[in-house]
Amino acid sequence: MAEQETDTTDTAPPVEEALEQARQKAAELEDNWRRTAAELDNFRKRVARESSRQRDTERALVTAGWLPVVDNLELALEHADGEDGAIVEGVRAVRDQALAVLAGLGYPRFDDEGKPFDPALHEAVGTTPRPEVPPGTIVHVVRPRYGDGERVLRPAAVVVAAKES
Amino acid sequence: MAEQETDTTDTAPPVEEALEQARQKAAELEDNWRRTAAELDNFRKRVARESSRQRDTERALVTAGWLPVVDNLELALEHADGEDGAIVEGVRAVRDQALAVLAGLGYPRFDDEGKPFDPALHEAVGTTPRPEVPPGTIVHVVRPRYGDGERVLRPAAVVVAAKES
Repeated sequence: MAEQETDTTDTAPPVEEALEQARQKAAELEDNWRRTAAELDNFRKRVARESSRQRDTERALVTAGWLPVVDNLELALEHADGEDGAIVEGVRAVRDQALAVLAGLGYPRFDDEGKPFDPALHEAVGTTPRPEVPPGTIVHVVRPRYGDGERVLRPAAVVVAAKES
Repeated sequence: MAEQETDTTDTAPPVEEALEQARQKAAELEDNWRRTAAELDNFRKRVARESSRQRDTERALVTAGWLPVVDNLELALEHADGEDGAIVEGVRAVRDQALAVLAGLGYPRFDDEGKPFDPALHEAVGTTPRPEVPPGTIVHVVRPRYGDGERVLRPAAVVVAAKES
């Protein structure tokens, strides 16, 4: 028995070494686990954020595809200035309905005439001398703007008052 | 020295117990890690799948909002049957443009007249006796269908030939 105990004593260092190794391995695995759990957590948060952004992007893309239709409705109405009758009334109603659809999707139409030029909302397609208003004032809207702030679907195309020279 | 070694021998069983515990703990942690990693992997795959589905859903929702505008363009054209002039031409062009936008978004328009009724594509709004065609044949399209297969944006509203009685 005594000899056996002495044997155990002789193997004690390897056991302690194994214990140290097992503890190290456990610490490593805990580290791996925590990192993977954090990755999962971050991924979940990112997905929640991007999912709403991706929806907004798709909504903007699809809606932008309809703007030429609305533009051409406007053009048809402009050209019909002389004409009259049920169809002009009808087309006017459809145009108003289209504007309501755009507003409902988060892109209301804005009339920017008289407002100061803002590169985030407006695209200058020309300047014109207009001494009676401050330089940079929008004096004519060639194409209206849809949407505001972060959700500008299409900036307005505008003519602005030139700087005095 | 010998006494000290005997002391070590006395504490040997707790070390082995601690080793067993450390190994158990490592096994548990490895299990946790593997499960979390599998969860992350599954989540990634699910997100990739759902992201494309969510885009399709948003696309369908936004596009469906424009269908009443297209319907009313059609109505305006129907009511203008007697009238003529630039505006009728213009509105016809806008209607064709709107149909092209719908097709571009993945929802082409289908004319189902003469086809057999299919509940996945058609909504029966009435039946009519029509002995010269097989029962269930679509004899009149009240409202056309947009989209096909998995991507039916709106089923057609149709009148079908009644069963012979």
